[in-house]
Amino acid sequence: MNRSEKTQEQLSRNKDQLYLEEVPLQQIANTVGTPCYVYSRAGMEKRWHAFDRAFSQRQHLVCYAVKACSNLAVLNVLASLGSGFDIVSAGELTRTIRAAGDPAKIVFSGVGKQREEIEQALKCGILCFNVESLDEIYLLEAVAQTVGKPAPIAARINFNIHVDTHNYLSTGRHTDKFGVSPQQAVELCRYAHRSRWLSLRGIACHIGSQLTQLAAFTQVCQALSDFATQLAEEGLSINHIDVGGGLGIDYPDSEPAPTPEHYIACLLKAIPNHSYKIIVEPGRAIIGPAGLLLSRVLHLKTSGQHHFAVVDAAMNDLLRPALYQANHAVCQVQTKQSLPPQTYDVVGPVCESGDVLARQQQLSVAAGDLLAILTCGAYGFSMASHYNSRPLPAEVLVDGQRFDVIRQRESIDDLISKESIPTTNSDRRGS
Amino acid sequence: MNRSEKTQEQLSRNKDQLYLEEVPLQQIANTVGTPCYVYSRAGMEKRWHAFDRAFSQRQHLVCYAVKACSNLAVLNVLASLGSGFDIVSAGELTRTIRAAGDPAKIVFSGVGKQREEIEQALKCGILCFNVESLDEIYLLEAVAQTVGKPAPIAARINFNIHVDTHNYLSTGRHTDKFGVSPQQAVELCRYAHRSRWLSLRGIACHIGSQLTQLAAFTQVCQALSDFATQLAEEGLSINHIDVGGGLGIDYPDSEPAPTPEHYIACLLKAIPNHSYKIIVEPGRAIIGPAGLLLSRVLHLKTSGQHHFAVVDAAMNDLLRPALYQANHAVCQVQTKQSLPPQTYDVVGPVCESGDVLARQQQLSVAAGDLLAILTCGAYGFSMASHYNSRPLPAEVLVDGQRFDVIRQRESIDDLISKESIPTTNSDRRGS
Repeated sequence: MNRSEKTQEQLSRNKDQLYLEEVPLQQIANTVGTPCYVYSRAGMEKRWHAFDRAFSQRQHLVCYAVKACSNLAVLNVLASLGSGFDIVSAGELTRTIRAAGDPAKIVFSGVGKQREEIEQALKCGILCFNVESLDEIYLLEAVAQTVGKPAPIAARINFNIHVDTHNYLSTGRHTDKFGVSPQQAVELCRYAHRSRWLSLRGIACHIGSQLTQLAAFTQVCQALSDFATQLAEEGLSINHIDVGGGLGIDYPDSEPAPTPEHYIACLLKAIPNHSYKIIVEPGRAIIGPAGLLLSRVLHLKTSGQHHFAVVDAAMNDLLRPALYQANHAVCQVQTKQSLPPQTYDVVGPVCESGDVLARQQQLSVAAGDLLAILTCGAYGFSMASHYNSRPLPAEVLVDGQRFDVIRQRESIDDLISKESIPTTNSDRRGS
Repeated sequence: MNRSEKTQEQLSRNKDQLYLEEVPLQQIANTVGTPCYVYSRAGMEKRWHAFDRAFSQRQHLVCYAVKACSNLAVLNVLASLGSGFDIVSAGELTRTIRAAGDPAKIVFSGVGKQREEIEQALKCGILCFNVESLDEIYLLEAVAQTVGKPAPIAARINFNIHVDTHNYLSTGRHTDKFGVSPQQAVELCRYAHRSRWLSLRGIACHIGSQLTQLAAFTQVCQALSDFATQLAEEGLSINHIDVGGGLGIDYPDSEPAPTPEHYIACLLKAIPNHSYKIIVEPGRAIIGPAGLLLSRVLHLKTSGQHHFAVVDAAMNDLLRPALYQANHAVCQVQTKQSLPPQTYDVVGPVCESGDVLARQQQLSVAAGDLLAILTCGAYGFSMASHYNSRPLPAEVLVDGQRFDVIRQRESIDDLISKESIPTTNSDRRGS
């Protein structure tokens, strides 16, 4: 096991075979086909417990960020641990409820919540709406009045904190669309406090994703802590502080990520007041290292000095390398000492040069061999598309010695089933 | 109508309303809901005819690149004009056949064709496989022998031509995965000529996408023309030269794109030998300017000096701005002189800072107003995903005074229907 392979939860090599928990990955590929996402139940449980236990005696709630990977079975595993959930849409709300998630542990974030979504969430009895604008608070109030049930809210504050991550993953600057300024947040809290149809529960922040520097988290937690004190001095009491998510994981070439234990310790230190429940919203840090993408080599190809391993997974299955210039390690599912190692770009069948899953990988492979693309449990399947009319891949959950298909592979018919040709097409003017 | 609005085919303004052909866009939004892709039949027909007619007396085939927009109704409109099709997967093959496309006018490109895909295409009787590697030619030969039908092939040549476009959209360099070198192409043609199960039909190339400089096209056509002459001197005769696609269209800030007429004239001049049929594969240049994305403003928001229009379309509906840093113009569906104009970033509800559909747009809008995001018929819906558990948008075809839903909006149930929770989840260890 090299360094990259060690970052994947529950991965091991026995003789020539790669295992996730106690299941040979080859067996999954042969049964379910490729491409296929595979998640380790033990892996996600371990990561979730690492967050949960690090809080020790402090009041807290770990809310898994559903957008990272929203498969019903994944959500159900976390729900059975007692996890909370951070959702951003009615789709994620429906998924969480279907997966037996506790509505009273759901926080609803996002800048574009619609009336119907708010109504559905309010009726479900979610824990809190993280409010991102003044307009939203008025909408929440109106819907709450219609439903006849006060809306629990937290003000999501944008402290204009700059962090070191991919530009798309930074969310806490004034030029980002998220949250309200501290001044607006005070107004928002006062408004909620006065309103019969709003119930002020907390304050929230989220500064970005895939962060590896604890200093930024300290900064935001101190800002939140100070803000809570300021509110209390005004007589605006809150129950919780939602510090958001954003803890990074180890990808090749990324800075080493802090452990959940170090991360939580840092949050707790920056929020010394024990009267607040701390909410944290990890997504990537729970499911990222617990999932991988299985793919088969279609053929090898040489162009000039450049070697390509063309595989059956593509950018439609895993968008992160093309969208974020993300690096994922690739490893062989069967070790083959007989083949000479070669440096390959691992590319998919999609007709676009951006369809490179991993560059410059040392592999000893032939056509038909299996590869595992590592640490892509987060923002893998959840960003998959049908580009090039490719059906979505299957998803599998490994649990000890067993594995289950938790999402069936799509068929080509599935892609087309909602489309139709107008009957008038044929009797219109010819060419 | 400003410059950007004029780049959209069949768009017009009458009184305060924006029309596509003779249908007010507001009527579509109110009937079908938003977000929603809308295509103009007359627009795509006009663009297709521009390519087709520019060939005049020269033998030719316009093969629409299905990956640009693969809705059945769109393909059916083009099929009824007599169009050919450029496909890259079994999914696109199935779509084209269902849309009444003529198999004898289909070319099959792509670096990762699988055995089953080749078999299906061969049985359908497609015009040609554009072969991208030596391994593929052996696979094609083997499948052809099994099926008992020789495989028609063209060698896709990579001339190592560098073009001025987004890095992901350049496909003709040695470091790209596409095609074979001229030396390998000669071998490949010789091999096909000798094989009983292969039928050498042509040569092919494709240097990139969204190209606005004719010089690159001239260069590749001259190279293809010279290569054909070289083959003929060896006694290797071919029927067609497939010059690929790649003609750009006018986006805001892009260099002005040549017209189809200028483009085709340039190709024909560079291939003086009239004995070859010329195949051209436009995708974007046919459907791009014929399609737009309708979206509704959810609310307006100010953060510091920054103004945001939060709309109900997002990066999952239209990925191009996030993936390619693409610019699309945004215009108001209803003109409102009463509102003061303001400069907005048009952003979606997805929880990610990359979810910006268009920056710095001058708009006079309020919550509830409709916006049209222009010239996104190509690589719009075809790259859409379910990110943030958002159902795929609807698609609509406008034809004169009528419009039809050609793809129904997905429901949240559709997103979940293939997922299941293993029965063992509940009886496993608790937390």
